[in-house]
Amino acid sequence: MKTYQQLLDNVNQYIDNLPYPAQPQGLYGPIRYVLSLGGKRIRPILMLMAYNIYRDTTDDIMPQAIALETYHNFTLLHDDLMDHADMRRSHPTVHRKWDENTAILSGDTMLIMAYRLFTQDTSNPHIIQALKTFNDATIGVCDGQMYDMEFETRNDVSTDEYMEMIRLKTSLLLACALKIGAQLAGATDSDSNHLYDFGEKMGLAFQLQDDLLDVYGDPATFGKNTGGDILCNKKTFMLLKTQEIASTNEQQQLQQWIDATQYDPAEKIKAVTAIYDHVGIRQICQEKIEQIFIQSLKSLDQVGTDDLHKAQLYDFAHRLLKRKK
Amino acid sequence: MKTYQQLLDNVNQYIDNLPYPAQPQGLYGPIRYVLSLGGKRIRPILMLMAYNIYRDTTDDIMPQAIALETYHNFTLLHDDLMDHADMRRSHPTVHRKWDENTAILSGDTMLIMAYRLFTQDTSNPHIIQALKTFNDATIGVCDGQMYDMEFETRNDVSTDEYMEMIRLKTSLLLACALKIGAQLAGATDSDSNHLYDFGEKMGLAFQLQDDLLDVYGDPATFGKNTGGDILCNKKTFMLLKTQEIASTNEQQQLQQWIDATQYDPAEKIKAVTAIYDHVGIRQICQEKIEQIFIQSLKSLDQVGTDDLHKAQLYDFAHRLLKRKK
Repeated sequence: MKTYQQLLDNVNQYIDNLPYPAQPQGLYGPIRYVLSLGGKRIRPILMLMAYNIYRDTTDDIMPQAIALETYHNFTLLHDDLMDHADMRRSHPTVHRKWDENTAILSGDTMLIMAYRLFTQDTSNPHIIQALKTFNDATIGVCDGQMYDMEFETRNDVSTDEYMEMIRLKTSLLLACALKIGAQLAGATDSDSNHLYDFGEKMGLAFQLQDDLLDVYGDPATFGKNTGGDILCNKKTFMLLKTQEIASTNEQQQLQQWIDATQYDPAEKIKAVTAIYDHVGIRQICQEKIEQIFIQSLKSLDQVGTDDLHKAQLYDFAHRLLKRKK
Repeated sequence: MKTYQQLLDNVNQYIDNLPYPAQPQGLYGPIRYVLSLGGKRIRPILMLMAYNIYRDTTDDIMPQAIALETYHNFTLLHDDLMDHADMRRSHPTVHRKWDENTAILSGDTMLIMAYRLFTQDTSNPHIIQALKTFNDATIGVCDGQMYDMEFETRNDVSTDEYMEMIRLKTSLLLACALKIGAQLAGATDSDSNHLYDFGEKMGLAFQLQDDLLDVYGDPATFGKNTGGDILCNKKTFMLLKTQEIASTNEQQQLQQWIDATQYDPAEKIKAVTAIYDHVGIRQICQEKIEQIFIQSLKSLDQVGTDDLHKAQLYDFAHRLLKRKK
């Protein structure tokens, strides 16, 4: 069984050695840039771990693993463009470093590269089945992104709707990564589906943790400033839940900050965080993460494999949820 | 053998009946809109015609045929966004009717839908082979679009480079449409490749004809105003060739119009067209189209099928090149 570090090294090495056409440079330069910025490589690693449950090597599914990472980075590239984000992983985003058209087109090309990588080596007898799982993820993530955008202009988003949005936008790809790894290894449908469920729950907890860090993370370890979600009135679980349970007075205060067009950013972050603190949203969110994490472990437990492999997946999920950045 | 009209009806009917998820409406509304605007449906029809050479029915490859049309419309959607074009097929473009983010995301989703449609029915034993041909087209079209954008800021583009750009951006998909149709029908590699060559040449002639119509088309039948390429200094074969063969005096005049920042549009079109007329670019371009068309027929001739099917493909290509719009 490969360790997490070995798998991470495999993934990064494969990405470093990806062949790019020499021309047009304007197209492949940005793609190489985006893929070289690192990141946690969660999706390919999950796929490789799932495959590794059933097979000793992981080399033969590297193209499919990197397809998922390429797809994920395509979504970040286009999401950053749509959000007008300036920075990603401490580096300028593609539309800032180059321009918007380059961001559109190099994103499109990454999406195609993802499909190309996925079907590059078709010797695996389960490739079509796995490709359909991949398709389910890719379309679902777009649905999730659309809901995310629609929520920006809606005032009646419920916490359930938020959870469904992050299930689509974040969880689906983690769940599918595990399922694809299992499918490519020829696992039973039962195992594949339990791994999927494990990944889906893990993804929800992961995103809630992300939201939590955006408010309560330590900027020094978090790698970016906290409070970004508060400043852009992002309708996270924490905001929606606070709106639901806060006193009338606090609800009004919160709404005033949301509606405000001129304010001192630091002051807004401080004031909204104070309301969060007062309703105890940090603990509520942490409890929800814990609750979902336990659910995810129940799914993992039902996978018919030895405890060693389960422990590795447990450790990985645990590490993601206890992370500080 | 199905007639052109029957195939067109099949394609439009399939598109009309495509199932869309009810939600998110903001995502699937624009996609439905784009696909409903019509167009010549060249790519699916070519694929069906090629398949029809070897098989009596075409119903079983409709998803793959519509995948190509969906892919093609995705490229138009994103190209229009990158070009800031207001209209497409006499209707407002998606980024005008909705907004830029909707155009980005619904385009991304169309690209994924194309792959989804392509691999929806995987019972055909040649599906993987055909998918690889599709991949070659999809990535090549992006390369072509990038060259097209890069040419805008370059002053040393050659006619050869222009021909290579339109080969990638336009021809590749027509060529692959024919090849995929043949591959899915289990045709020999020789036939598939000759059909590919036929489509590649046809695509070049088709694009040159498009450029020609943009200058010399009758606005009444052309469906849009002529002179658009002249106004945006589009480096077409006609412009590049004129720059090459015009007298020094005309070259200077042409350059002045290209560099001009303030001018009466009608006057610019008239002046540039006068230079075109003087060097005889219309005839030069028509001769080039004719020459490439003859080359394409040589490839078609080498396809090992009966004359009836060849005649249908000949008619289709002939109709495209003699069109007035």
